[in-house]
Amino acid sequence: MEIERKFLVKKMPEDLETYPCLLIEQAYLCTDPVVRIRRQDNSYYMTYKGKGMMVREEYNLPLNEKAYLHLKAKADGHIIAKKRYRIPLGTLTAELDIFSVPKELTLVEVEFSTEDEALSFCPPDWFGEDVTSDSRYHNSNMI
Amino acid sequence: MEIERKFLVKKMPEDLETYPCLLIEQAYLCTDPVVRIRRQDNSYYMTYKGKGMMVREEYNLPLNEKAYLHLKAKADGHIIAKKRYRIPLGTLTAELDIFSVPKELTLVEVEFSTEDEALSFCPPDWFGEDVTSDSRYHNSNMI
Repeated sequence: MEIERKFLVKKMPEDLETYPCLLIEQAYLCTDPVVRIRRQDNSYYMTYKGKGMMVREEYNLPLNEKAYLHLKAKADGHIIAKKRYRIPLGTLTAELDIFSVPKELTLVEVEFSTEDEALSFCPPDWFGEDVTSDSRYHNSNMI
Repeated sequence: MEIERKFLVKKMPEDLETYPCLLIEQAYLCTDPVVRIRRQDNSYYMTYKGKGMMVREEYNLPLNEKAYLHLKAKADGHIIAKKRYRIPLGTLTAELDIFSVPKELTLVEVEFSTEDEALSFCPPDWFGEDVTSDSRYHNSNMI
């Protein structure tokens, strides 16, 4: 199970460039259920996600570069490109995604171990509106 | 983990029509690793299989009809059609597959709980040659 909340960003962290950053490219073979392929630096995955907003069943399965490129040719719509910064928030981690394609947009996600932890999470000042339940901000709807 | 042995068929069981039978259609989006979609009567699945012959990592993930048809349009090569009979062998089950597309062929598979059980399996008289390690008989190579 993936338990995650997603927010708009009110103000970018000032020390952003001090945090580790990944280049992510991702594409969708199907959106209901979600079948996503992702290149993350030089790692490749296929991800299956069940239904749900804050809590979703998720499987991450390894691909190789050749398989990734083969499947990418079958993608629906746009290929998403984003930079992901991983920013510690106490024992949690904020994943700040700066999208360049298909449009410029910044979102921040936090993953939790339990639903209780997710529901009691108090976002820091730089977080904006909670868009966990707003399907417009699902990556699978941006393509 | 899927632990399975596969055999040619020397002689068809005489009482074949007394056993339950499924209609299976399956297609491949990728063959290394295997990403397979399958329609089994009116159920739909996507399956991911890791490397291996007798023992392979396998994930079976549910699809709906619309997702299946969407992904089927992205398939590589031929779409496989086969009838599968499930024949009890003591506590095990033989799955006898009669392929009609892409070519006529009959194979029988048995799934096991452990490698020891697989290695000590004594096939009945109607089974032919063990082709577990012969990649020509992988469905993903028939397309």
